[in-house]
Amino acid sequence: MIYQFADRIGTLAPSAIREILKVTQNPNVISFAAGNPAAESFPAKEMAEISADLLANKYASALQYGISEGYVPLRAQLTERLRTKHATGTENDDLLIVSGGQQGIEMTAKILCNAGDTVVCEAPSFVGALNAFRSYGLKLKGIPVCEDGIDTEALEEYLKQDNRVRLLYVIPTFQNPTGITTSLAKRKRLIELAEQYDFLILEDSPYFELRYSGKVVPTIKSLDTTGRVIFVGSFSKIIAPGIRVGYVIADKQIISKLTVAKQVSDVHTNLFFQMVISEYMNRYDLDAHIEKIRAFYVVKRDAMLAAAKKYLPAEVTCGKPDGGLFIWCTMPNGANTMDFCGMASKRMVAAVPGASFAADESEISPSFRLNFSLPTEEQINKGMQILGEAAADYLAELKKAGK
Amino acid sequence: MIYQFADRIGTLAPSAIREILKVTQNPNVISFAAGNPAAESFPAKEMAEISADLLANKYASALQYGISEGYVPLRAQLTERLRTKHATGTENDDLLIVSGGQQGIEMTAKILCNAGDTVVCEAPSFVGALNAFRSYGLKLKGIPVCEDGIDTEALEEYLKQDNRVRLLYVIPTFQNPTGITTSLAKRKRLIELAEQYDFLILEDSPYFELRYSGKVVPTIKSLDTTGRVIFVGSFSKIIAPGIRVGYVIADKQIISKLTVAKQVSDVHTNLFFQMVISEYMNRYDLDAHIEKIRAFYVVKRDAMLAAAKKYLPAEVTCGKPDGGLFIWCTMPNGANTMDFCGMASKRMVAAVPGASFAADESEISPSFRLNFSLPTEEQINKGMQILGEAAADYLAELKKAGK
Repeated sequence: MIYQFADRIGTLAPSAIREILKVTQNPNVISFAAGNPAAESFPAKEMAEISADLLANKYASALQYGISEGYVPLRAQLTERLRTKHATGTENDDLLIVSGGQQGIEMTAKILCNAGDTVVCEAPSFVGALNAFRSYGLKLKGIPVCEDGIDTEALEEYLKQDNRVRLLYVIPTFQNPTGITTSLAKRKRLIELAEQYDFLILEDSPYFELRYSGKVVPTIKSLDTTGRVIFVGSFSKIIAPGIRVGYVIADKQIISKLTVAKQVSDVHTNLFFQMVISEYMNRYDLDAHIEKIRAFYVVKRDAMLAAAKKYLPAEVTCGKPDGGLFIWCTMPNGANTMDFCGMASKRMVAAVPGASFAADESEISPSFRLNFSLPTEEQINKGMQILGEAAADYLAELKKAGK
Repeated sequence: MIYQFADRIGTLAPSAIREILKVTQNPNVISFAAGNPAAESFPAKEMAEISADLLANKYASALQYGISEGYVPLRAQLTERLRTKHATGTENDDLLIVSGGQQGIEMTAKILCNAGDTVVCEAPSFVGALNAFRSYGLKLKGIPVCEDGIDTEALEEYLKQDNRVRLLYVIPTFQNPTGITTSLAKRKRLIELAEQYDFLILEDSPYFELRYSGKVVPTIKSLDTTGRVIFVGSFSKIIAPGIRVGYVIADKQIISKLTVAKQVSDVHTNLFFQMVISEYMNRYDLDAHIEKIRAFYVVKRDAMLAAAKKYLPAEVTCGKPDGGLFIWCTMPNGANTMDFCGMASKRMVAAVPGASFAADESEISPSFRLNFSLPTEEQINKGMQILGEAAADYLAELKKAGK
């Protein structure tokens, strides 16, 4: 039988990168390709204690249907935490619990954008979000990312010529994949542009509490006075990703529509782990826990940066992210990291080619993304050595081919 | 700020019924309005034991990201169970774990239907599904349900005049809200019609294992030889709903597209509870557990049927469902149960007016839905007495008004 699928889904195919990433299922492969936090960062013991309590004493509510908005105490705790600690969220705003940040992104596209509308994003950007936009038949326009964030001049040039831009999608803090943090000046500029050209900003910030160096930059949402910013956060990197709990803060009107979308999507986020997180925040110090994760990851970041300096050919440049999970490396022009990462995967090291993060999937990218949160220090050293050798071989071949 | 939302979401408003259901937050109200299973049906002790094990010994995987398709052992167990126990699923099929049956319905609409396509459903039908279809701008056409299922003659009449029907949405076993089970003959007829008029059937079956009387009728999916049936099942009523775990079985091509939709929607269903269910099926006898739930619910169903006979005015007729969670009652023509249920809620008993289940929300319905799984037997008796008095008063008023 030949099925006819909806127009919106027709262009969404499993990506070419899947083949490269398949090697990561082999336990002998050193993977720098993941976006996973380290299991050592999960507060498993505390979660076990709370889970046992809930299943003994509160199972009748913890396992029952909940409301679509989310577990009321958790929403209150989060609202309070974000306001006091990050100046994020106002009296006009509301907070919705979602099944991971990804759901916040997908539902934002669903409630705001008609097929054919444009979503502007950073180039490169997070492929999960790009695919969510694609799944609603939206036009994607990538604007290059500079050292201090998206190129706001190029962005304005584009805005002048496309009046169907509904949404700007940015990951301003420790961006995925580049690790870059958007400067305060540019954050302010983005809000001005949103006002002037009448679009909304979707601020995706799954890593913003994982800073290892440099000064805190306020969230774009905290600079927003007119309700143009939708902030998506997540517990995936500060508690655990497998439990699928994130949140969205935005103007009440937007949250109201998102709640309707949430209701038809999965009714509500699994209530048990909403209660676990809420109780974790009651019994323990979430900030102290995040502090421990940062101390754990900064060592890995530094190990990977040192190994990159030691083992990668001088022609390969690497970013120095102040936080997050990724280091972005760029080979000289002419390099195609789809080929290079394919070569590396045969040598049992996995990295993600830059093309996977492009709004235009057919783009050839000289960059690749490395993850340092999941591998051990030993794996980082061994893997970077192999990757360095592969890079030298690849670049030599490239030179030989006269590219 | 005035926001402009996507066309698809514009018509989706919080329903009028919300006001009536708000009274159920009052603990003094006896609610027959829920769709919740009883907490006594949750295997909480066993789940506590397994959760403790997982969090002590397997937390590194149970709390980590999983694959979009679902936890591999659970998929294998479910595939095996459905094939051997329900003859449901073939070699051409695949199985996807979803975050509750609702997500299976929403994603099916997303991958199969363009705005303006028609979804035919039973009239009345499950409002959560209807809203999922509405959220993609789909046209809903309700076809009346008879004692033995949807009116297949009226359905064919409609199919002759609308060539944009992509999907027939049915809850063939212990339907929500009517409790009706579609006969084997009609199930076969639906497949013939799907072949003849080229549409797919979405078989939503959250209650099919909760039979209290009568003979098992095969799933529509088990009668399907050409891949036209998508079967959605759920653990909400046989394990617990708050954990949000369901599944979809369909042809591999359809599951492949659903998996892409799943990936952009919430990446994967919370892995921890997929593992809990899988381990539950390893350590315990799920069928024996379901048997216990049935023994528990049949008493409640019979109590409610007896109370309905005893307390409701003779003009109110009630269905006698062979399973599920609901009893469907119908007042004489001219009655508007939006008014009646409003009156009952003031007397501290909540029931759901039939209009909530209509494809056309402005429809006036003489019917209402009662849930028997959640209230205690004592609540059933007391609540039905109050409801009977309210019904008598309402019908007297109606007669007085000459309707």
